[in-house]
Amino acid sequence: MSAIEGGRTTCEAVVRSCLERVAAREPDVRAWSYIDPAQAIAAAQAFDRGGKRGPLGGVPFGAKDIIDTFDMPTEWGTPIHKGRQPERDAACVALSRKAGGVLLGKCVTTEFANLHPGPTRNPHDLDRSPAGSSSGSAAAVADFMVPIAIGTQTTGSTIRPASFCGVVGYRPTYGEHRLHGVMEASGSLDTLGILARSVPDVALYRNVLLGIPPEPMMTLDRPPHIALCRSHIWDQFEPTTRTLVEDAALRLARAGARITEFELPADFARLNDAHRWISSFEFARTFTFEIENHWDEISDTLRGGRLHDGIDGSFERYIASKELAQECRTRFDSLWGDVDALLTPAAFGEATVGDWAFAGVPLFQLWTILHVPQISLPVFKGPAGMPIGAMLIAKRHDDRKLFACAQWAYQKLM
Amino acid sequence: MSAIEGGRTTCEAVVRSCLERVAAREPDVRAWSYIDPAQAIAAAQAFDRGGKRGPLGGVPFGAKDIIDTFDMPTEWGTPIHKGRQPERDAACVALSRKAGGVLLGKCVTTEFANLHPGPTRNPHDLDRSPAGSSSGSAAAVADFMVPIAIGTQTTGSTIRPASFCGVVGYRPTYGEHRLHGVMEASGSLDTLGILARSVPDVALYRNVLLGIPPEPMMTLDRPPHIALCRSHIWDQFEPTTRTLVEDAALRLARAGARITEFELPADFARLNDAHRWISSFEFARTFTFEIENHWDEISDTLRGGRLHDGIDGSFERYIASKELAQECRTRFDSLWGDVDALLTPAAFGEATVGDWAFAGVPLFQLWTILHVPQISLPVFKGPAGMPIGAMLIAKRHDDRKLFACAQWAYQKLM
Repeated sequence: MSAIEGGRTTCEAVVRSCLERVAAREPDVRAWSYIDPAQAIAAAQAFDRGGKRGPLGGVPFGAKDIIDTFDMPTEWGTPIHKGRQPERDAACVALSRKAGGVLLGKCVTTEFANLHPGPTRNPHDLDRSPAGSSSGSAAAVADFMVPIAIGTQTTGSTIRPASFCGVVGYRPTYGEHRLHGVMEASGSLDTLGILARSVPDVALYRNVLLGIPPEPMMTLDRPPHIALCRSHIWDQFEPTTRTLVEDAALRLARAGARITEFELPADFARLNDAHRWISSFEFARTFTFEIENHWDEISDTLRGGRLHDGIDGSFERYIASKELAQECRTRFDSLWGDVDALLTPAAFGEATVGDWAFAGVPLFQLWTILHVPQISLPVFKGPAGMPIGAMLIAKRHDDRKLFACAQWAYQKLM
Repeated sequence: MSAIEGGRTTCEAVVRSCLERVAAREPDVRAWSYIDPAQAIAAAQAFDRGGKRGPLGGVPFGAKDIIDTFDMPTEWGTPIHKGRQPERDAACVALSRKAGGVLLGKCVTTEFANLHPGPTRNPHDLDRSPAGSSSGSAAAVADFMVPIAIGTQTTGSTIRPASFCGVVGYRPTYGEHRLHGVMEASGSLDTLGILARSVPDVALYRNVLLGIPPEPMMTLDRPPHIALCRSHIWDQFEPTTRTLVEDAALRLARAGARITEFELPADFARLNDAHRWISSFEFARTFTFEIENHWDEISDTLRGGRLHDGIDGSFERYIASKELAQECRTRFDSLWGDVDALLTPAAFGEATVGDWAFAGVPLFQLWTILHVPQISLPVFKGPAGMPIGAMLIAKRHDDRKLFACAQWAYQKLM
């Protein structure tokens, strides 16, 4: 970013270098649902001619293909909306362009940002899954095709692809960023996500997407207090993953962090079910148009999964689940004491071989439904040499403190 | 509805009778931003040919022009989006059609559902305002052009037009209905709204828009406990309005209701400011695309109002306002005791003459930000003979109890 700002290179040169990488790798990785080199170069040239720089200063970015763009189609990962061309930018894209971002292209999403996979492969091993639903956003950043990409998260759609692909993935506190122009999956749970290659890049881009001026990273006046949180799903993580996370806690303690253990209240185990009933009830209503008019073009994965749960879902169970979630959020706020961040795995293990839908083991619902900010750091390697993320979690609205802890931890663990 | 179901009339006949009323009155009232008689008749004929009835059984409905429709343009009340044609229906429209509703046309919205008025006039007195932002939805229902219409509410955009135009207006508990395909104004506050001519119609349509089966109205096993809530804005209501509401409380007591008074905690007075900072911060980010690319086509009303407050709005104040709101919502839940509903005015007084933006005295933010369900009942007449609504309010998620109390009160007050 500073190189463009300082006049040592141009946006066009950066975009051309991204496009070279895309040309070399995209036939294998398939991270993009739309990319037109001539259009990207023209946008970069327009930026280089223009006077306004902004905090992004000409950096190219990608956007998940459920995010509207006035100059590129937005197809939601479904043949139903093939060729769909919005007439305006989603808020997050308009804010990115306003800040000097240059849209390189649209990144592959799974079908309706749900479980049915798109064509994207894991850039570290093409036989493996990139995870989803922000598959293309994570793979494109991991493969150096673009330095930053916007994703979204309703369950684990940013954190898990970040873990599988070995990039930094951030899911913000629920409700801080505007989602207008972003396909809703489940409005009570949806947030944007950011995929990038460093914590400072994520921190800068968060402010861009909030539409507020850049600010320096928060600095810690002492090493952080990090609490290892195994949670009730601990035995669903692979043994190697559990060992990696426990070992990381020891290394952070040796580096000066205060390390404790954090036990969730027993009834928080009910939150994964609450997530299921909220997300499926909402999803099935959001997509009434497609269900009524295009049922045959919806995948079996989706019809037999979230739509099966949602179409005849009980309204009473939906409201009870929302009330439980709200009650747990309020209670969770009071449990932190002086803990700065929780540490837990960002995925059950390494990227799976072949059909990645298998990897849909329910793990992230707990954190997503609590509306807390989450970040995945690419600091582990599994038995096959594939990346695994360490996840840090902070209290709602403590996103800046989360970045400070994450940057500290990243430096100690790399 | 039962007449179509029973075969005593057809959807086409009902639509033709609506269209006759539109033909007679629309040149004066200007409630519709899009209506094509041939298209509406074709839709009715298709319905009459079709086998599926659904709980709406062929009833025509209108939709505010910030709600996407695959077969009609959706222009958000701004020249910027003139001719904008969505490729799919918003969730609420798809659910209405699935339930057997026939879309008659699109109802006028104010610019971006904010304060700058559209062309609609009050059907009871063409020199007066219909209020906004769901101006056309309320006027069309009030003028018997359509029995039911969908609006939205971010501040008072359903309740106030209902009061000014003399129809039943309902703002549901925040978060229960899906808003996908509805223009976002302020995502933390936006809900759908329903404009109709009776409480049972509203109750039925609520279930349609929730995508759940119809259910009978809740019945009260005793007259309701209704609490008069003057709130900290009591002296901003016109004296006549205050007298009408206090008199209504006496009449309900004589009819058997238990009537008490309800005093809000003093710090709830800060919620109107919290609403201002939340809505303006969010609004200014949602519309970044328009601000950056179409500034000259935005009204002075909006540029000097919500955008002025929002564009450089403080993020810290935004978050503090959200935290205050969340804290007050939780606290409010605990204050109800055995009160079933609160009673308060639905507008400061009668519809204003001329430019209705004047009527934008901040009154409703308190209830809207508390996320509670509200209903306006057309039971009063002001000094000029214009309608004024009585507003009933219930606890979050007690929408069905709200309808039961509203129906009981409506019968006693008419």
